[in-house]
Amino acid sequence: MAEGTQSVTELNGGVSVEMEVNNGGAAELPASISSVIPGWFSEISPMWPGEAHSLKVEKILFQGKSDYQDVMVFQSSTYGKVLVLDGVIQLTERDECAYQEMITHLPLCSIPNPKKVLVIGGGDGGVLREVSRHASVEQIDLCEIDKMVVDVSKQFFPSVAVGFDDPRVTLHIGDGVAFLKAVPEGTYDAIIVDSSDPIGPAQELFEKPFFASVAKALRPGGVVCTQAESIWLHMHIIEDIVANCRHIFKGSVNYAWTTVPTYPSGVIGFMLCSTEGPPVNFKNPINPIDADDSHVKTKGPLRFYNSEIHSAAFCLPSFARKVIESKAN
Amino acid sequence: MAEGTQSVTELNGGVSVEMEVNNGGAAELPASISSVIPGWFSEISPMWPGEAHSLKVEKILFQGKSDYQDVMVFQSSTYGKVLVLDGVIQLTERDECAYQEMITHLPLCSIPNPKKVLVIGGGDGGVLREVSRHASVEQIDLCEIDKMVVDVSKQFFPSVAVGFDDPRVTLHIGDGVAFLKAVPEGTYDAIIVDSSDPIGPAQELFEKPFFASVAKALRPGGVVCTQAESIWLHMHIIEDIVANCRHIFKGSVNYAWTTVPTYPSGVIGFMLCSTEGPPVNFKNPINPIDADDSHVKTKGPLRFYNSEIHSAAFCLPSFARKVIESKAN
Repeated sequence: MAEGTQSVTELNGGVSVEMEVNNGGAAELPASISSVIPGWFSEISPMWPGEAHSLKVEKILFQGKSDYQDVMVFQSSTYGKVLVLDGVIQLTERDECAYQEMITHLPLCSIPNPKKVLVIGGGDGGVLREVSRHASVEQIDLCEIDKMVVDVSKQFFPSVAVGFDDPRVTLHIGDGVAFLKAVPEGTYDAIIVDSSDPIGPAQELFEKPFFASVAKALRPGGVVCTQAESIWLHMHIIEDIVANCRHIFKGSVNYAWTTVPTYPSGVIGFMLCSTEGPPVNFKNPINPIDADDSHVKTKGPLRFYNSEIHSAAFCLPSFARKVIESKAN
Repeated sequence: MAEGTQSVTELNGGVSVEMEVNNGGAAELPASISSVIPGWFSEISPMWPGEAHSLKVEKILFQGKSDYQDVMVFQSSTYGKVLVLDGVIQLTERDECAYQEMITHLPLCSIPNPKKVLVIGGGDGGVLREVSRHASVEQIDLCEIDKMVVDVSKQFFPSVAVGFDDPRVTLHIGDGVAFLKAVPEGTYDAIIVDSSDPIGPAQELFEKPFFASVAKALRPGGVVCTQAESIWLHMHIIEDIVANCRHIFKGSVNYAWTTVPTYPSGVIGFMLCSTEGPPVNFKNPINPIDADDSHVKTKGPLRFYNSEIHSAAFCLPSFARKVIESKAN
């Protein structure tokens, strides 16, 4: 496409846009861009008051409004393509590996022989890509509320959406809370909750009734891993999540974290819990993915995860350990 | 001080300013603020192209130009007071604990009974505060090139500059490279290089002749810890530092990292090396600070560091491990 031109094509209710970004064109840009640094996307939210991370925008590739949220894709100048939901960065091509690999392999490498896996959220397909590296897995269900996220990922992030190509995957478009209620008791070995922040459509995924449904859908000794915010920004939310999980999950309850540069404060955490049954020691991966490299041919090598960083993820700074250990074992 | 007023007082060549920040007043603000988000400080640098982290400014407290760099202090709305050198955030009251505690205790907890410690840079005093937690230490020398940093820290960051109050500390204002050359061979048990980025006055501190001087100033089996940039942003710089260190230090050469939200990409790394002599296993702290809490009464408890996170800091993401292990053992 020639510089300075603009194309707009319909895509599932959204609008696919290629637009050059420069200071003079600010009036045509979405509010999250034009209101802050001209030509830059800035992430401003009451979830992290007083700070903003900004990425330089080369081109806006897609802007849409689904039934649930605003969806945007842009080409950044140094982080590859970027997916934004309701003004919040969900993934960039440069650092998505850290989040997708950790949220998936922390639970799946902690149990022997996982066969049935459920992903709630994760409509971009990145978690599916990682789950499908595990040869033991026979069935992967994914329940995403927003079809636009799936469609946009398939169009703009093929190396992420590649997860949908696995024949073991069944995609369910719908509400994860309702989906879980209909699941027969004890169905899954592992459930991964790849949600956005607890403001907006993902709010229920941080509440006690949801965790109770998760526990019921897991086999004895089954495991869940949920996105669980930042130790630097959200200790009050984490404290509540840990207390809820401690109440619901009778196996072990643990908090882990990793680095993701484009998430607020540069870190993201995970709650890892197991149900009553065979004990799970999350800190010691007994099902190392490093050992089997048959997945590398089709999906490329792991870029972030390894067994050492798995164990290290459970080591917390003292300020966080103090709060979390007062709520969990 | 009344809202909307402004006071300016002389401080060692700089100017102490209290100024309300609002959109209308942008014309009076330094370039790093007014050029980006009105009322916000944005960190833009060729060291991290295409991204910027911004903090909301409540008041600019100090602006000065020393012989070496621009020095600024501002009150942020959610990160406490912030020290900025040449437009780059050096510390915020909210997250300085992570950097100061890790750069200090990673080396000092890895050797038995450290007695003589040299700090190069670190004019804010935060590393001194941490070194002085170690009861075995008898002598602490600090060589900072820029007196304005020391003076500004003492005025605006008393909980950081408290490190200067320890009677074991001797402050040398001068060039770290020249200081090291004059040190008798084998003087120190540990040297901590708390430098800014390798653009500006700290450039030489990342080069081979400097590392050779460090090695010479250390006793056999002595250790050095240097600030060593971000695995997400600066693998090419890190690769060079590791190769240089591998050439100079005949003991062990290791890379560790930690989370600091207000540093670019949210992480900062450290090179930890030992000279020929008694072997040092940096990954296994043999001199745990957790064991002795006599320092807590005067300096407050450790907020970030503990023995678990010490060991975890050496576990690297696969993409970084691959590069670093090809250069080091």
